[in-house]
Formats: sequence, structure tokens, C-alpha cells
Amino acid sequence: MRNLEMEAAKRLLLLLFLVSLLSISTATTTRKFRARKPCKRMVFYFHDIIYNGKNAKNATAAIVGAPAWGNRTILSGQNHFGDLVVFDDPITLDNNLHSTPVGRAQGFYIYDKKGIFTAWLGFSFVFNSTEHKGSINFAGADPLMNKTRDISVIGGTGDFFMARGVATLMTDAFEGEVYFRLRTDIKLYECW
Amino acid sequence: MRNLEMEAAKRLLLLLFLVSLLSISTATTTRKFRARKPCKRMVFYFHDIIYNGKNAKNATAAIVGAPAWGNRTILSGQNHFGDLVVFDDPITLDNNLHSTPVGRAQGFYIYDKKGIFTAWLGFSFVFNSTEHKGSINFAGADPLMNKTRDISVIGGTGDFFMARGVATLMTDAFEGEVYFRLRTDIKLYECW
Amino acid sequence: MRNLEMEAAKRLLLLLFLVSLLSISTATTTRKFRARKPCKRMVFYFHDIIYNGKNAKNATAAIVGAPAWGNRTILSGQNHFGDLVVFDDPITLDNNLHSTPVGRAQGFYIYDKKGIFTAWLGFSFVFNSTEHKGSINFAGADPLMNKTRDISVIGGTGDFFMARGVATLMTDAFEGEVYFRLRTDIKLYECW
Repeated sequence: MRNLEMEAAKRLLLLLFLVSLLSISTATTTRKFRARKPCKRMVFYFHDIIYNGKNAKNATAAIVGAPAWGNRTILSGQNHFGDLVVFDDPITLDNNLHSTPVGRAQGFYIYDKKGIFTAWLGFSFVFNSTEHKGSINFAGADPLMNKTRDISVIGGTGDFFMARGVATLMTDAFEGEVYFRLRTDIKLYECW
Repeated sequence: MRNLEMEAAKRLLLLLFLVSLLSISTATTTRKFRARKPCKRMVFYFHDIIYNGKNAKNATAAIVGAPAWGNRTILSGQNHFGDLVVFDDPITLDNNLHSTPVGRAQGFYIYDKKGIFTAWLGFSFVFNSTEHKGSINFAGADPLMNKTRDISVIGGTGDFFMARGVATLMTDAFEGEVYFRLRTDIKLYECW
Repeated sequence: MRNLEMEAAKRLLLLLFLVSLLSISTATTTRKFRARKPCKRMVFYFHDIIYNGKNAKNATAAIVGAPAWGNRTILSGQNHFGDLVVFDDPITLDNNLHSTPVGRAQGFYIYDKKGIFTAWLGFSFVFNSTEHKGSINFAGADPLMNKTRDISVIGGTGDFFMARGVATLMTDAFEGEVYFRLRTDIKLYECW
């Protein structure tokens, strides 16, 4: 009887040791196993109306920097290379500019290529409703001519505390060089 | 005796299996359980003196972009919408502009709303003292009229290697449109 | 016999409890133990040719914002303080400007200090080759006079999905105020 108990105790100790090894190695390699499945997913639209000298009332964006050969009322040639645009755009749940906004998209984009339309974006989605409170911060390259483009969710506050992820942009509609609408499919992979 | 040992062995195997399942599920859901308790917290003040055509010696910031209706010496109307300001501001431990700086706050802000004061910030705290070496990088929306606003800590280098977190800004003081002081309460939730 | 089995069962339950405690505490302290060893490391060069009024064909960058005392054709005095430059620079694997580009570095930098050369960077490496597809997003302070400077990798897409890390910049060569080449040593510490 005593022997058997001793034997069992030894096994338990060995097991304890093995399991502790196992749980340590599991924890340190967590990321490699983590599925690319969003912990939160949301789709929004935002609407950008660039000031063109005539639409001061409706405009939600304005050119504030331009190259030496450009100006701040009309987007410059060479695919707007060098134009810096600041925006405060309404965010809607559907693709209708006149739907009740659920937040504001605020920040800037810079057209950064002579050959084709491409921009670099730095902006936030700012929410202050019963549905969402807080902000989601974005940064990344936006090669506008691709049907969909991925940028990074680099952080968040409030309801989106410490968020990280990827947002897929799609130009949903545009009218000349004054209006465009971006569908934004936000996939968060780090939620706290 | 043999039977009993076999039984014990079976149980151990089952246990090993159950525990391995447990430790895997614990690891993959770690984040949900992680407490929102900062791993590092620091409070700093930084001081912004905008160039206004007369204060070249003291100015730590300058307007470098403006909308078509603005200029680069005086902040534009409509809550400065479109003004892009570059800064290199002293960081102090207390709220005194004349205290010995412990670092520099360097980057830019863009006023991005016509209706109220709101800005988008991209900047770094740069430290090079015996106390701290390295940088903390920030980005986010700053709705200036709110008493406190949260932006994201999107990364860090040196002493702040790979840092992530949230910084709570508070306009601690301002004098007309030339000087303001921001209290910055940095809470890091990822420390390496 | 019965007693022994009861005893063994009790021990198993206790063990199960202890091990679950152990695996939880292991998981929550993972980060502190994580080694500062990159999960991916890559070295690239990128080449910046600033427009100076005469080199429109070769230029890959242009001044698009400047302080009141500057202009957009010539970098301003006081260490270019306030100059905002937009770029679309070729990325090469070696330090030869004429090597086949493997991607584009796109974004902006702002000179942000009067006393010495210092800039704030926001940009992306954009890849679309058989080797790499996707983007790496960067932000941070670049004190140009230091031999090497660290900025943050704040996110990534495609092959660099959810990447985080540090990039060490080194000015590898420059010619007057028109051309510079940056060696970029990218060390990712979060790979998905």
C-alpha cells in the first residue's frame, strides 16, 4: 500500500512538472497559433466633400498644403501629387450621405505619387453616441486605384481601448474631384 | 494491484489531456482577462508657443499649412480649420514653462473641424537624459473642448521599446492664441 | 482499496486546481518573459530626391508645406524647420539608386526643430512583387544628426499582417540638399 502511494505521488510530481512546462511553452507561442479571426468587425461609410472655391457650405475637407506648382483651391496635376487635404467627414452606417451620422472621420490624406492616384492617410473615427463612445486611429498607404486597400488600425480609446487591426477601404462612389465615399470594413484582431 | 495502477495511469493520461486543453484555452483568451492596469504610468507637461510674426525667438511652433482662405502667420477663422502646425516643444515635469526640460515633444497637429476646436495629432516625446532615453510615439484625435481627451500610444523605442497605451491630454493653461500647455498622463498597457 | 482510490481522486482534483492556477498566472505574465529577439528582420534602402525647381523629372519628393518665412521650392533656413515634404521613393535591396526597386516608400516628413536637423516621419513601405505583397507602416521622430535612429513599426498588412516592431534608420549617403539615402533595418517583434 505504502509503495503504491509513493509511486502515485512520484507520478503526480512528474505530471505537475510536465504540465507546467507545457503551459509555459503554450503561453510563449500563443501568437503563432492565434487565428486570424477578428474579435470585432464593423462596416462604416464616410463621405468627403473637398472645398473647390464654391462649396464652402457643404465642404467637409480642404486642401491645406500643395507643391510649388499647385494651389489650395484646385487639386494639382500629376495625380494631385503633393496635395495635403484635411477632413472632418460624416460617418454613416449605410452608403447614403444624408443618413444620420454616427460619428466623424477626422484627419488628413496626402497624395504622394506622380504616376497614379495614391495617398497616405492618418485619421481617426470619433464616436460619441449611445452606440459607441471612443475613437479608432488609422494610418497607412491607400493606393486608390486598387478596388480594395488595407490600412492599419494603430490604436483606440474608450469602447475601442487598445484596439489593433486592419481596415479594408473601398471607394464606393465618387463624383468628379469633389465628392467621394469610402466603405470601411474594420476588422479588429486585438480587443481588450 | 495491477488493476489499480492501470486505473491510476488512465486517469493521469486523461488529466494530462484535460489540463493541456485548459492551458491552451487559457492562453488564447489571455487578453480578455488582462486587467486594464497600466504597466507604466508617467505624467508630463509640454508647452506650445505658436509663431505669430512677432515672437520668432520664443516660438516653438509654426503654421506651415493653411486653407486657401488662411495664411501662415495668423491662425485662420472657423476654429482654425485646416491649419497645420509643426512643433518642437519643451517637456517639463511640472506645469512651469521655465522648469528644466526633460525632453522634447516633436511633431504636428492639424485643426480639422470648422464647427469647434478639434485637432489631429501625430508626435513623439523624445528623451535623452539620465532618467529616460528613447521615444514614445502618439497619434489620435484631440477634441480640444473636452476637459480630457484620450489619444493612442502607438509605439516606442529605447526605454519605451514596443510600448502601447493611452495618453490622456488636458489643456492645463492657455494664453490667447499664442501659448498653451498640455498635461499628458501616459498609461502604458504593453511594456516589454 | 476504496480509501486509496478516494485519496487519489482528491489529489487529482487538487492537482487540477493548482495547475489551472499555474497556467493562468503563466499566461498573464507572458510579455515580461518575452525575449527581445525579432521574429522577422529585413534591411532595405530608400532614395529621396527632393524637387528643387529644376529636377522635376527625377524628383521623388516635394515640399508641400513651409513656414511663413519659407517657400516650397527651396528648403527653408533654420534647419528647414517647418518644411513638410511628401515622397514616393524607390526601395532597393542594396545602396544603389539604380538597382531595380522592390517597392515604394510613401508618406511624409516634417522638419520640426530650429536648432538642429530633426524630422517627424509618417510613411509606409508598399510591396507588390512575387517576393513581398503588403505594406509596413512607420511613425516616429528622426533626429537626423544621430548616426542611427529608431522609429516604430505601427502596423502592417498583407505579408506583414499586424506587424509591430522597431526600424533603425541610418543616413547612408546624401548629396547637398537634393538627395539622401536611408538604410532601414526593420526588426519585427510581433509577427502573426
